[in-house]
Order: sequence, then C-alpha cells, then structure tokens
Amino acid sequence: MAENKIPYKIYLDESEIPTQWYNVRADMKNKPAPLLNPATLKPMTHADLAPVFCDELIDQELDDTDAYIDIPEEIQNFYKMYRPSPLIRAYFLEKALDTPAKIYYKFEGNNTSGSHKLNSAIAQAYYAKKQGLKGVTTETGAGQWGTALSMACSYFGLDCKVFMVKVSYEQKPFRREVMRTYGASVTPSPSTTTEVGKKILEAHPGTTGSLGCAISEAVEVATHTDGYRYVLGSVLNQVLLHQSVIGLEAKAALEKYDVKPDIIIGCAGGGSNLGGLISPFMGEKLRGENDYKFIAVEPASCPSLTRGKFAYDFCDTGMICPLAKMYTLGSGFIPSANHAGGLRFHGMSSTLSQLYHDGLMEARAVEQTSVFAAAEQFARVEGILPAPESSHAIRVAIDEALKCKETGEEKTILFGLTGTGYFDMVAYQKYNDGEMSDYIPTDADLQQGFDGLPKVD
Amino acid sequence: MAENKIPYKIYLDESEIPTQWYNVRADMKNKPAPLLNPATLKPMTHADLAPVFCDELIDQELDDTDAYIDIPEEIQNFYKMYRPSPLIRAYFLEKALDTPAKIYYKFEGNNTSGSHKLNSAIAQAYYAKKQGLKGVTTETGAGQWGTALSMACSYFGLDCKVFMVKVSYEQKPFRREVMRTYGASVTPSPSTTTEVGKKILEAHPGTTGSLGCAISEAVEVATHTDGYRYVLGSVLNQVLLHQSVIGLEAKAALEKYDVKPDIIIGCAGGGSNLGGLISPFMGEKLRGENDYKFIAVEPASCPSLTRGKFAYDFCDTGMICPLAKMYTLGSGFIPSANHAGGLRFHGMSSTLSQLYHDGLMEARAVEQTSVFAAAEQFARVEGILPAPESSHAIRVAIDEALKCKETGEEKTILFGLTGTGYFDMVAYQKYNDGEMSDYIPTDADLQQGFDGLPKVD
Repeated sequence: MAENKIPYKIYLDESEIPTQWYNVRADMKNKPAPLLNPATLKPMTHADLAPVFCDELIDQELDDTDAYIDIPEEIQNFYKMYRPSPLIRAYFLEKALDTPAKIYYKFEGNNTSGSHKLNSAIAQAYYAKKQGLKGVTTETGAGQWGTALSMACSYFGLDCKVFMVKVSYEQKPFRREVMRTYGASVTPSPSTTTEVGKKILEAHPGTTGSLGCAISEAVEVATHTDGYRYVLGSVLNQVLLHQSVIGLEAKAALEKYDVKPDIIIGCAGGGSNLGGLISPFMGEKLRGENDYKFIAVEPASCPSLTRGKFAYDFCDTGMICPLAKMYTLGSGFIPSANHAGGLRFHGMSSTLSQLYHDGLMEARAVEQTSVFAAAEQFARVEGILPAPESSHAIRVAIDEALKCKETGEEKTILFGLTGTGYFDMVAYQKYNDGEMSDYIPTDADLQQGFDGLPKVD
Repeated sequence: MAENKIPYKIYLDESEIPTQWYNVRADMKNKPAPLLNPATLKPMTHADLAPVFCDELIDQELDDTDAYIDIPEEIQNFYKMYRPSPLIRAYFLEKALDTPAKIYYKFEGNNTSGSHKLNSAIAQAYYAKKQGLKGVTTETGAGQWGTALSMACSYFGLDCKVFMVKVSYEQKPFRREVMRTYGASVTPSPSTTTEVGKKILEAHPGTTGSLGCAISEAVEVATHTDGYRYVLGSVLNQVLLHQSVIGLEAKAALEKYDVKPDIIIGCAGGGSNLGGLISPFMGEKLRGENDYKFIAVEPASCPSLTRGKFAYDFCDTGMICPLAKMYTLGSGFIPSANHAGGLRFHGMSSTLSQLYHDGLMEARAVEQTSVFAAAEQFARVEGILPAPESSHAIRVAIDEALKCKETGEEKTILFGLTGTGYFDMVAYQKYNDGEMSDYIPTDADLQQGFDGLPKVD
C-alpha cells in the first residue's frame, strides 16, 4: 500500500546532503592492513606519504577509528551543484522482467564528469588547494576520473596533469577533449616525459599502456615537481570515505519510505563506487544492527576478488608506490585487449578486500557480452544509457530479480548506477554489430601475475 | 533576504509535473498563418495532412483556440523518468562574472537523449502507437532529435527509421550508435533508398546533405509505407505545444520563491526549445498580466530571424512538404561548412515568427567562437558541459549579466540550457586548438536563398 506511494525518483532536499562522510573502517573489527613502505616493509607513516599525498588526505587515509569526518563547507557547496543524486525505483525494468522484486538504483551519472568520481575529485582538489599547492597529477584509464578531477581543479584554480593510458588516449579523443575543455593537460602514458615512462617504453616498445604504468608516471611527476601532489580516484581508503556520500544519500532516501534493501550490488574495479555505496549499510551489519547481502561485481576478464590472491602488492607497474594488502592479480597483470568494460585494475581496495576476506561480502564475475546485453535492455526500458562499468551491476541486479521471479520472493534490490556511457559508443557499436567476444584468463595466465607478487612475509 | 533561501537547484515534486500542455496560440491575437498546400495554395486540412502526420497530432497542429491540452497519462508516466528537470540558480556563474544580475537556467540535458527533444518525441511516439501504426520516420541533423525519438519508439515498441544528414552520420558515429542501441535504423541522407534522395544526388553528386534533404526523404518513406507516419522535432506548432512543459515547470519553480524573470533567453533553430520555454510567460504578456523581455538567439551563420524574410516557404529541400509562413533564409540555404554549432535550419517556427513579427520578442545573432568561449566559461564554473546549441543562449545570458554589472541593475535572467555537449567534442577540440573560425553570410549569399522562395501572394 505504502508501496504505491514510492515515486519513480526519490530526491532528497539540498539540505539533506550529508555533512559528514562515514568511515566504515571505524566499525571494522579486522581493520584493513596498513600500507607498507616497499623498502623497509614497515607501515607507511604520515611523513613517508607526505611527498606523495596532500597532508589532510593522508590523515584520512590512516584514520581507522573516527566513524564520521566533517565535510568542509566548500565541498558541501560544490556537492550542491549536482547532489543529492536521484535514487530511482526501476519500475520499468521490473515490469520488463515481470519480477516481484523491487529494484532501486542510485544514479551518479547526472553531472558532466558522467560518474561518481566527482565526489572524491572535488574533495581531493579542495585539500590540495587548502595546502597551498599549485597542482596535482593523476592517471586515468577510461577517462571518468580524469574528467572529474579536471572539473574539480578548474573550480579551485589548480593545475591538473593527467596521464591517460595510451590506448584510451587514442581511442577516446573526446574524453581527452572534455578534460582539455576544463583546462587540464593530458599526456598519453607511457610517455618519454618521465624516467619510469622511458624505462617501461624501453622494456615494452609497442605497449599501449596500463593504469599501473600511468600511476607510476603521475607519482613520479608529483614527487619531482615543486608544489604538486599525486591524487588517485579509487582503491585508497580516503576515496571510499568520500564516496560514502553515495550510500548515505541512498540510505536516507530509502528510509523516507521505510524501505530496507535485501541485496546491495555494485560494480568493482578499484572499489570506490562499491565501497561508497555499501559503507553505511555495512556499518549497520558490522555493528549487528541489520543484515544485508552485498555483491561486488567484477569482469570475468579481470577477476581480482573471485580469482585473485589476498596478498601485499604494488598498486602500480613501476613499483614505486607503497604496498597494499588486497585481493590482486599481480601488478603485472593486464586484461586482454578485447576487454571493453572498464574495471581493469589488477587489485582491489584494502578495505573491501578485508571485508570480502571476512565473509561480509560476496563477489561475482560476469562476462562482457552478457554485461552489454543487460546494458541495452536497461537503456531501452529505463532510458539511461549506462557506462559499461555500471552495467556489471545491472547484469547481476537483473539476474537476482529473475531469481525472484522463479521463487516468487519480493526481495528489494539496490544497485549503484555509477555513470553514463556516452563516451563508450565504440564498445556499444561492437556489441550492436555482434563483434564483441568474451575472454576469461586461464589459470596459467593468472599464475604469471601471481609470480610477480612481492615477497613480504 | 528571501534571496539567500533560494537553493542551487530548485526541484519540483513528481506530482508537480504539468498535466496539461499550454498552447500559446490560444492567447495570440494574430494567429500564426496556416500551412498551405503547395499545389493549391489553400490552407492544409486535416485530410490533406493525414497521410503525413498522426491524426491526433494534426488536431494539435491545427488547434489555435484551446489554451490547455491534457497530457495523456502514459506520457505523464514517461515524463516521470526524467522530469521535473532542475531549475538551477547560476550562483557560480554570477560570482565569476561579478554581476548583480540573478541568473537561472532550466536544464533539459539530464536524460539520455541529452536534450529537451525527448519532451516531444515521447508525445509523438505515443500518438503513433495509439493510432496503431507500425512505425515512424524522421530526420536528424546533430542527432539529438533522432536519439530522443529512438528512445521514445523503443519504449512504445515502434519501429523508427531515421534519416541522418550524411555529414553528421560520418562525423558523429557515436550518435548513430546511441540510436542503434535503442533499436532504430539509421540511413545517411541523401540516400538512394528514396526517389527524392536519388534526385538530389543526381543534381548534387558530392553533397553531404542537409536537414531539408533528410526531411524530404523521411516524408517520402512515411507516405509510401503502410502503417508509417512522419514526425518532426521542431518548427511545428505541436512540437512547441509539447515543449511547453519546460516553461510551465520553470515558471512553477520560480513562483515557489516569488521570483519573476525580467529577461528570458533561448537558443533558436526551428524554435522548439525557445517556444517551449517562453510559452507560459508569453501567455501572460499576451493577456496583459505581466511583461517580460524575450530574446531568441541564433547563429550569425544561419540568421533566419535577424536577416531572413517573413514569407511562405517550404520546410524541406525536396519541396514536398506544406508551405509555412515564417522567417526564412530560403529552403535552398545551407550554412557554411565551418558552422559547428547546430541550429542550422533555414526557417523558424510559424508561431515564433509571428510573435517576433509583432514585436513581442527580440532576436540576436551571435558568432560561434564567442559561443564556444561562453560554453567553456560556463562549463568551468557551473560544471555542466553544454551543447553548442544551448551555448548560444549562454552567450547572450552572460552578455546581459555583464550589462547589469555596468549599470548596477539587479535583473533576473532566465535561460534555457537545452542539452549537453558530450557528442560535440570535435567542435570543442577545434575551439581548444584555436582552429575555429566565424562565418557571416554576405547579403549576396542570402539573396540566393531568397531567390528560391515560392511565389505565394
């Protein structure tokens, strides 16, 4: 009965945008393992990290005890430009699937960056500005993070140097132009502008790059240029912290209508979106207040949670970054060239890795043709053209809803729709033309990556 | 004081989506001139139009007396997927301009079609479905209309045949793929699939097409295929009627905060967005209840209002459509190839043409480099990457705000932000690289178009 009163879109008021981020680590009994200094294998201190990251972001990175951290007013003001994001009841999808399940999605694509990445980009740019820096460096793959950071830097008048994975730089010239329009400089990676880039190019002359390479170059430039620091769009604890606005808003919107989700689903590359979406719900589960089923969805071609090892590893190919304990395929792992769907990082957020290791979260790997089938079905009934990354979550949400159809269960499903697919039409075209194929790495393929794992214990 | 309480975004509730469209013609003393049958030069009747358009849409096209027309429930339901659209107070732009003016914009780009076109597409698809048709045909230039119609047809299970201006088909493959993803067929125009296309190709072998050509082809297919009708995304009275939801929502949102705009600005190609935005405000002006200053903004390279003739003309190049009385550059006019900014139709909505002729609305022509400068400035402070078309309105809104800075006047400016520029990055790249130039047709250039005007009087 109350059911019928739930609107298609649930918007919160501007005044309901969270004023604090939620730090899920505070409620974790088993804390995520600390970053290690690769030279000494000792936990990284604030001083160790200071040449790389902004000071306040290091505090956030290392803080695993404070549950709530105030969002500075300037960031709250920027959030008002595009938040609260809508929570949408997928009435049209439910109807198309003929399922008794109730499906909701939190849509983070309604800003120019086209994805949730802006939530952390604006925070990181703010702290860089506050520290009096001139600019920041970063890497980007598909381009969503680079776009978001360019916008954020433009807003605060910071210089922004983006290293873009070469294959994306060439295949996605429009993403590059969006970043330039916001005033960023964009360099294809690996490049000859850095020592690590030159080294990688010498070893692999024809390489089209990887996220791991681009991270190495961005870190080198940040640590060798006065007034610059490096920022990262996923994986790190600080990023999950900022992204908690997604989950906090989603929870507040559902509570307005007394809705409690049974299953919460998110796509997982480095973990920024999934971590942000599930944080406040996971907090309740950790504190024993409520139970939820969480599902991380990753591509079968880059299956860090479902087939990776829980071990210390480098976050970058150049091996100049700290070691993180995470589910990883090895920093040398590069997904097959036929992989179109993003989420191609070899590792996974330490926080999410620990939660998964402790059995608090499930994971599922899906193949890309089935992901694009879900994307197209979703687009045709719900109207939004989803990013390939987001479509991993759509795939599993549809699968769970179809299970409900079989069993007759009226489960409530919430998933994160992280972004739009406007810049992914090359992949859609492949799918439309029937030219998309799947790829699942063999155990031997994966062993190569595992062989490169650093010896820590 | 109340001022400070105005949020960055004013959202209406789902329940505040208009349930009736407003028909501005009902309040016009001088009605727009009727469409004429080109063979007889007599006003087109319902029977004359029936082979081309859907029956109920013809009723709407010819109705200049009913002020309000009910929006069918199915269309209202679809509107809920992406409406109400936000009305945004441009606090960041005001600050960047250091102007006492208060600037608001109605943002229609927050749906997958990326523009306001969906408001009419869904209505036209609904009436086609209701009439039991199999499908519809249409033309598209930049692709916003074709995208919107593809979405709408997918929703109602209608076939959708799009003739896309050849130059756009080749330069905007991603737009084409979005349409295909929604299940439409897309043919580059002129094509050899129609008689009129063959004729045009014979006369102009190397032509890259024009909207006028594509309209001719789409009409031919509609009238020669059983169960099909032709639909159009602008110019027509019915389209302005559907687009009145933009103005109705904008007005309702402003009234929540007792705000009355002094100046209302919209870009104008065929007039769908401008007509929709200003309709309810114009109604008040026509009824003598309130006064507003309306400004239509068009490209200097396609200046139908500011330099065109108010005369009967064909809407298409193949001269198979009815004659419309409008400000026109002649159906043979094609904007220079260096023109990047959309809004390239040779004529203008009869309704808007009449209002302009009667001195109820102003018009201004702007050059494209200044339009892209405004687009970039807007993107960097407001965060939204605007479509080139929408940026014409931004240009004049900024100009008017800067005038206020000089005079110290605290005018309230409302403009329509019709869509996003994600598929226009080729043009942005040209601008970023300093390779964009302006073009203003000479009087002699325009005379060629005027020479082709039909002799009606």
